[in-house]
Order: sequence, then structure tokens, then C-alpha cells
Amino acid sequence: MKIGVKILPKNEVLDTQGRAVEGTLRAHKREVSQCRVGKYVQLEIGENDESKALAKAKEITEFVLYNPLIETYELEVVKQ
Amino acid sequence: MKIGVKILPKNEVLDTQGRAVEGTLRAHKREVSQCRVGKYVQLEIGENDESKALAKAKEITEFVLYNPLIETYELEVVKQ
Repeated sequence: MKIGVKILPKNEVLDTQGRAVEGTLRAHKREVSQCRVGKYVQLEIGENDESKALAKAKEITEFVLYNPLIETYELEVVKQ
Repeated sequence: MKIGVKILPKNEVLDTQGRAVEGTLRAHKREVSQCRVGKYVQLEIGENDESKALAKAKEITEFVLYNPLIETYELEVVKQ
């Protein structure tokens, strides 16, 4: 089962990449209200039960993928 | 309206970050079948119509966010 992990910088953290993208878009007349840039990780977990796969993905994410001081994350089941 | 852009390296492209995470997980007895690491971008677009917001996000993504040679992307509407 594929689990997607969406990781974004917390709102109160200065997101330099997001600011850079905002600036580029503004310079090219494609302004957006806000842009935040984070990471997307797709884990292929050998587990058919959805809740077990999500639990394993949560454990892995908190172990090694995200930094709780400056980031938040969200899990999703990826439909094939 | 918030649109999320999930960007991943194409399957045929060597994903060095993904391999590194796979190695770390293996070394810590948390093996997964596959791991791919990409980017997640959240755009806040001042547009209430879903299809218009998606069209604008698509245009921005293809203009500046992803590299069509080595990456694929997927859009999603972010529920508040």
C-alpha cells in the first residue's frame, strides 16, 4: 500500500523557498496570496491493511522524515 | 482556495534521496518496499472557482515549479 506524506513548514516559520517562489511569480504577473514549499514522500509499505499501513507510515515519518520543531505533516493513502 | 502540488521524480529517474531514506530505514529495522522523495507546494490562490484555481495552479506549476524532464506532478484541492 502506498502512503503519501506531505510535509510543510509551520506557519510561524519563515519559509524562504516559498517567499522566493512568491517573488518569482509576482515578477511574472502570476501573483498568488501565499506559497509554501515542503517535501512530499511516497512510501510503499508491504501491508494491505489501511490502518496498519498508516500507523507504520506515521512511525517512520516521526522517526526520520520530519522535524517537529519547524514542520507539520499529513498522511494520505495513495489510490493506485 | 488552497491548491496542493505534489511533485515526485519519475520512476525511471534515480531518486538518490529516496534511496538514502530506504537505507536509513533498513538500518533501523523499519524496511519499506520503496521510498520516493519529492516536493510539496501549497499555493493560496485568490479564486473561489475550483476549476479556475486548478487551471491557474497548473499553469504556475508548469511555468516554474516542476521539471518535466525528470519529474511528474499531481494537483489537489486542499480542504480547509
